[in-house]
Amino acid sequence: MCLNFVIVYLYFCNVFKVVIIGTGNIAFHFSKVILENNNLKLCQIIGRQKKIDQKFEEKIDYENNIKKIKPADLYLICVSDNAIQSVSNKIEKNSSSIVAHCSGSTDIEILSNHENYGVIYPLQTFSKNREIKFSDLPILIESNNKKTLKKLDFFCKSLSEKIIYCKSNQRVFVHISAIFTNNFGNYLNVVSQKILKSNKLDTKIILPLIKETADKLFDLDAKDSQTGPAIRNDDETIKKHLHLLKNSEFFELYEILSKSILKNRNEL
Amino acid sequence: MCLNFVIVYLYFCNVFKVVIIGTGNIAFHFSKVILENNNLKLCQIIGRQKKIDQKFEEKIDYENNIKKIKPADLYLICVSDNAIQSVSNKIEKNSSSIVAHCSGSTDIEILSNHENYGVIYPLQTFSKNREIKFSDLPILIESNNKKTLKKLDFFCKSLSEKIIYCKSNQRVFVHISAIFTNNFGNYLNVVSQKILKSNKLDTKIILPLIKETADKLFDLDAKDSQTGPAIRNDDETIKKHLHLLKNSEFFELYEILSKSILKNRNEL
Repeated sequence: MCLNFVIVYLYFCNVFKVVIIGTGNIAFHFSKVILENNNLKLCQIIGRQKKIDQKFEEKIDYENNIKKIKPADLYLICVSDNAIQSVSNKIEKNSSSIVAHCSGSTDIEILSNHENYGVIYPLQTFSKNREIKFSDLPILIESNNKKTLKKLDFFCKSLSEKIIYCKSNQRVFVHISAIFTNNFGNYLNVVSQKILKSNKLDTKIILPLIKETADKLFDLDAKDSQTGPAIRNDDETIKKHLHLLKNSEFFELYEILSKSILKNRNEL
Repeated sequence: MCLNFVIVYLYFCNVFKVVIIGTGNIAFHFSKVILENNNLKLCQIIGRQKKIDQKFEEKIDYENNIKKIKPADLYLICVSDNAIQSVSNKIEKNSSSIVAHCSGSTDIEILSNHENYGVIYPLQTFSKNREIKFSDLPILIESNNKKTLKKLDFFCKSLSEKIIYCKSNQRVFVHISAIFTNNFGNYLNVVSQKILKSNKLDTKIILPLIKETADKLFDLDAKDSQTGPAIRNDDETIKKHLHLLKNSEFFELYEILSKSILKNRNEL
């Protein structure tokens, strides 16, 4: 009863109350952007650690006992995938709040013990020490009912202009895409910098190329930006490189990626 | 004799004359940046096509008969790797000019029929429709003698602040690094956009992630930026994704890249 009263009051005041559960990178950036937003109120962060980041200490209420969770319009679970279920179970079921997670590959139904539940998946890589521009950040949302979708839409549109409605079985492929682009893409830069280092070259010399490789895609689709020996079917250069990499741990990667490009080159 | 006189005269005027051979992307960007530079003079472009890009038509002398090549301080061969040798053979040997190529994987000695020869390898991906900022572009140079190195250094320092002296056997590894970063990195973005498309999603939603993946590396080395299921050893997510990709042409890539990250994760 008390909880409902608080929510009605806050709706009246046009403030949407959020509790963030988690203290990782996504939790940090959601907390930060909510604190900066006039439509939204970050009323609590719940985490396992004793104290919260100094940056937040004076501004918000931090609690490490989930039983002391405050009333809110949205409980945003920002924990690792394998902890979502147990955190969700600890949040009391009620008819006015929404419980949502932020995971790309976790089905919405993991939260089905609640009345109103959903997913808010920001398509970005988050690090605590980097500013994230939320205004053009694609946020994929899903909910179990229309009323919830409306509220999630209000919340997300307060942060970004790019809201995408996306079911769990589609969202997991967006996550896979993100893994190819970010995790595997970054790993290729790890390989690149490792090769430079082992040849006693400054790893930073590759940065302008990394930047241009990315920037180009704002003008062209990736398939129209493909260059290099594999797309040209320049067998001589590929063989030369494979010979030079014959004792390298990256021989197989070079070979398989080249073969995959060669195989798909008619579509590129 | 006439050639020598011209070169001495131009040195006196502090103008370094360049002939570009080739009309591809690298030739285009070198031509453009030379035209904009007061220390340098683009006196001719040699190519196989009948006419040159409209952009240049009024500004420079274009010639498709290499026998009509003009006297110059530097003949910059900007053609595909397998054509360098035959182009080089067509340039008359003389003691005051330098003949250089721009290839990452071609040994300097391919030009050894000349007296002064070298390599000018810009570490970047070039497209005609994109501006390239030369001032911070790493340019790798090599020469067969000190006098030539001094001239190549003068030429390159007129364009960029980042000149790196690098032998052929080291430069080929820089090229391999560039292939991992640009060719293979872009290909992973092709894969990513293909997956989005086949799930009826806008391929542009991945752009902020592509940008942040690159931008992050100006603050952190790639090895310190690695995130995702593989580096976390999150076997459950990897298995889920592989199951979803089981009929996809990209199953093998996902598997091999994840395995490679897992194998190297202690060093990351």
